[in-house]
Amino acid sequence: MTVTLDDLNRMDLRGFEAALGETFELAPWVAASARAKSPFATVTELHEAMMAAVRTAPHEAQLGFLRNHPDLAGKAARAGALTEESKREQASVGLDSLSEEEFARFHRLNDAYKAKFGFPFIVCVRRHTRDSILRQFERRLLHDATTEFAAALQEIFYITRLRIAATVTGEGMPQVTGRLSTHVLDTQAGRPAVGLHVELYEYAGDRAHLLVQARTNADGRTESPLIGGRPLPIGLYELRFAVGDHYRNRDVGVADPPFLDIVPLRFSIAEPEGHYHVPLLCTPWSYSTYRGS
Amino acid sequence: MTVTLDDLNRMDLRGFEAALGETFELAPWVAASARAKSPFATVTELHEAMMAAVRTAPHEAQLGFLRNHPDLAGKAARAGALTEESKREQASVGLDSLSEEEFARFHRLNDAYKAKFGFPFIVCVRRHTRDSILRQFERRLLHDATTEFAAALQEIFYITRLRIAATVTGEGMPQVTGRLSTHVLDTQAGRPAVGLHVELYEYAGDRAHLLVQARTNADGRTESPLIGGRPLPIGLYELRFAVGDHYRNRDVGVADPPFLDIVPLRFSIAEPEGHYHVPLLCTPWSYSTYRGS
Amino acid sequence: MTVTLDDLNRMDLRGFEAALGETFELAPWVAASARAKSPFATVTELHEAMMAAVRTAPHEAQLGFLRNHPDLAGKAARAGALTEESKREQASVGLDSLSEEEFARFHRLNDAYKAKFGFPFIVCVRRHTRDSILRQFERRLLHDATTEFAAALQEIFYITRLRIAATVTGEGMPQVTGRLSTHVLDTQAGRPAVGLHVELYEYAGDRAHLLVQARTNADGRTESPLIGGRPLPIGLYELRFAVGDHYRNRDVGVADPPFLDIVPLRFSIAEPEGHYHVPLLCTPWSYSTYRGS
Amino acid sequence: MTVTLDDLNRMDLRGFEAALGETFELAPWVAASARAKSPFATVTELHEAMMAAVRTAPHEAQLGFLRNHPDLAGKAARAGALTEESKREQASVGLDSLSEEEFARFHRLNDAYKAKFGFPFIVCVRRHTRDSILRQFERRLLHDATTEFAAALQEIFYITRLRIAATVTGEGMPQVTGRLSTHVLDTQAGRPAVGLHVELYEYAGDRAHLLVQARTNADGRTESPLIGGRPLPIGLYELRFAVGDHYRNRDVGVADPPFLDIVPLRFSIAEPEGHYHVPLLCTPWSYSTYRGS
Repeated sequence: MTVTLDDLNRMDLRGFEAALGETFELAPWVAASARAKSPFATVTELHEAMMAAVRTAPHEAQLGFLRNHPDLAGKAARAGALTEESKREQASVGLDSLSEEEFARFHRLNDAYKAKFGFPFIVCVRRHTRDSILRQFERRLLHDATTEFAAALQEIFYITRLRIAATVTGEGMPQVTGRLSTHVLDTQAGRPAVGLHVELYEYAGDRAHLLVQARTNADGRTESPLIGGRPLPIGLYELRFAVGDHYRNRDVGVADPPFLDIVPLRFSIAEPEGHYHVPLLCTPWSYSTYRGS
Repeated sequence: MTVTLDDLNRMDLRGFEAALGETFELAPWVAASARAKSPFATVTELHEAMMAAVRTAPHEAQLGFLRNHPDLAGKAARAGALTEESKREQASVGLDSLSEEEFARFHRLNDAYKAKFGFPFIVCVRRHTRDSILRQFERRLLHDATTEFAAALQEIFYITRLRIAATVTGEGMPQVTGRLSTHVLDTQAGRPAVGLHVELYEYAGDRAHLLVQARTNADGRTESPLIGGRPLPIGLYELRFAVGDHYRNRDVGVADPPFLDIVPLRFSIAEPEGHYHVPLLCTPWSYSTYRGS
Repeated sequence: MTVTLDDLNRMDLRGFEAALGETFELAPWVAASARAKSPFATVTELHEAMMAAVRTAPHEAQLGFLRNHPDLAGKAARAGALTEESKREQASVGLDSLSEEEFARFHRLNDAYKAKFGFPFIVCVRRHTRDSILRQFERRLLHDATTEFAAALQEIFYITRLRIAATVTGEGMPQVTGRLSTHVLDTQAGRPAVGLHVELYEYAGDRAHLLVQARTNADGRTESPLIGGRPLPIGLYELRFAVGDHYRNRDVGVADPPFLDIVPLRFSIAEPEGHYHVPLLCTPWSYSTYRGS
Repeated sequence: MTVTLDDLNRMDLRGFEAALGETFELAPWVAASARAKSPFATVTELHEAMMAAVRTAPHEAQLGFLRNHPDLAGKAARAGALTEESKREQASVGLDSLSEEEFARFHRLNDAYKAKFGFPFIVCVRRHTRDSILRQFERRLLHDATTEFAAALQEIFYITRLRIAATVTGEGMPQVTGRLSTHVLDTQAGRPAVGLHVELYEYAGDRAHLLVQARTNADGRTESPLIGGRPLPIGLYELRFAVGDHYRNRDVGVADPPFLDIVPLRFSIAEPEGHYHVPLLCTPWSYSTYRGS
């Protein structure tokens, strides 16, 4: 269910709250407060008004708001007390399918976090891989209270920016998506490598999970971005290129076994809203890559 | 126990056989026959004379000679009927520590091979990884009898060339060693990358086994070749470079997590007596490699 | 003056000849003959019909047609007997401003060519640099009569394809344009190089003539292709990148003088209708380029 | 005429002065003063003792010493008042063959320099190209008196370090030579490029002067360094590689004209005693270079 910015600008308070009241977790007052600044020229302005409502709220209200957030991967997730949007977000990163051991680990970290800061650990899961969430947990546990209070609010702003972008359409949409793309140049032939098989893996610990399989088109690119239309989850990835197969059927005198067969490019994504172009330039005997644009 | 070529050239038949009679498996006649061409100007000539003795022997003698070779990874290996040299060679590639399943697989292939060709599968194990031996087995099972007879003799020539090179010293040694080396250039700094941690892995199926760990020296190289002084086993390898650590302590503004952390270079070796120079040129945002010299 | 394909398809013979009669030099019969195949579904089909009219004409008619072409850079160019289109084409490559010595050289080659083949040298000048025309002249003088007859017709087809593409609009336009583009990646920073000064030169003999100056935009590209919207003249080019200036104001510790200042990339274009993407990946200490896409 | 450090250590003052008195221009007192610290364990120590003698001399003595140096490219050079060593050094950089205009320019700069600082411009010409000397002149004219006094002494130390290295043999020679080398890898073939023609040019203004021609050997290197056994003159250079010829006779399907023919690598040398390794990795469609080691 989406709504246009124009319609929002024309709504009364009740309609406005009905439309956006669930954006900030169990805090319809954020939408109500933001509406005072309507009309909004851009969707980004709308979200900024909502963030301002949180930032200027009394500390107790902010704290209550943080405390109302569900435990990440916690019991709440199993007991059904989450909003629908929270459920979807947590499922997307695999937090709905933790092993017992992983569940226990997250639970321990969450307990330590709550004991130290007085509110549950909040992170915008769609901007992270499972590994990255774990690293966040460990880093943020080391924060002092003030730093972490700000960090938690920042995560809420990331979460709600995504919700607003999914709910409201109109001018000046906030930037909430990144893009991961590749391109294979066969520099032996001076042409794009056509029909070359590419796989994208995400690392969770030592294990690599296949995310995408594709073949390069006539321009050496995949038909669609490897990841696009969403934030790029912060984490470790590996692209694998079937360079050996590409040259096997060309009469180019490769070795047996070929010097290069599956070429892995391993890299991390740190900017969920960024553009990562990770091309491969290859011959049967050499290759190079770089973060391009 | 080594012997000089000069001493060999001066030996009588009995001494010559004592020195070299075990070179060709259970076939002291090969050494005896080769001695007719002494004196030898080079160690390579000595080995060529021994190969010629085998090549010009009657087919029945050749066949009997092939049949006298031990089963690779076979029962013989466990019953102690191998020459000492055969034992060492088979241990080097991990054939002395097969799992029950692997042992069964080798045994099945060996049985099929013997049933088809009438002699055991022979391969110069020091020129191969375990995976490469398995692939050899499967390929050579497809040969016709004539092709495989020649292939088996060729392997014996590789084996005995190594034995001769280990036993005899003198002019004109045969080329039995390869070299795998690396070099790390930090092209952001325009200097060799110093103190960068490098690991070399060998693949056995999907698993990578650590072979070597090293740090680059002031010239960006490892103090000694990653593999040297022996044939390079044909197979799949991966070099891993700790590029992330290298840049972490330099003030070069890397991302968090860094775009490049562990950089893997995966490549195959096909020429056991060749020189493989596999350098890495890197910045925090790019890298390239090639088979150099 | 352009005409739509639809209008052409509806014209009578007289109108058709008026519109396209000058396309093939002094040979309105080509248009007249092609019209018999109208209507044309695409502009490419129209040109193919015109080429077919030439190919199927009697040899004498073909020869007469070739003979009616002006001498390239010849006296005719100075006496005003060229069609307007021929004049523009010859001016574009600098053939209207030859030195006396160059004029004499072209004249000598042209005389030798006419003496051997019986018709003037014809080349689609918009697909060549001056150097490339000279090399064509020298190569084609070595042809036998049959080969050169076909080569001359092919050039006329290139010339008239450009004329048709400039005169007629509609579906299925023939491919008559190429594109030369660049892109500068600063792989030290992992970002496009912004505001970097780029120059494109064309070589005539040893001298390089400046064709284009540009600065890279926020994506490291020039706002428009270095050459586009026309055939890429076959010839030798050099891109020069002000890499030294780019790094001078960044705190990246370059040498004095910097290892890299003006980086030249020298390359030839061989496919006038192709896409040449010639990027530069650079750090203060390294660079690479390739024909990309 | 060289002398060993051992012999120097055994000489009396008269012999010592006879051997080294000409090292510092018209200042035999420098050698005499340094001798007080003999014996010297290394040649470097000997030179340091001579530098210390200059550094600790009274300012008036230092100034008189600087004033005793010949005008660079000045009248003195023509009147024969130079020591033999000064003549050779100035000839090496082309200062003995200036055009009238260049001579006038150097003269003007020299007059301005002497007017400002009260002594002639001194530079270790063997560490510079002609262009670099000119740039030095212009930069150093902007110095204040104290800075320039130190700069002039530093140049004398470079000059005399070279003289000592050429005159005295023994342990611990000072580092006075650099090395410029190259290496060509054909990454299309995965092998060194053999027999590839390479030229090294030095730029003087816009003109490039050929310094060295060479062919790559079986390892893709030139038999000897492009520059070696002497300081590398600071300046702008260009390596030119005949990549087009290299691929022309290989059946690798290059374009006509080839995308790459003569590949120029243009770079500056800033460290006369450094090692500049400037390799080329190439295919018919791509190349890269870097400052290696």
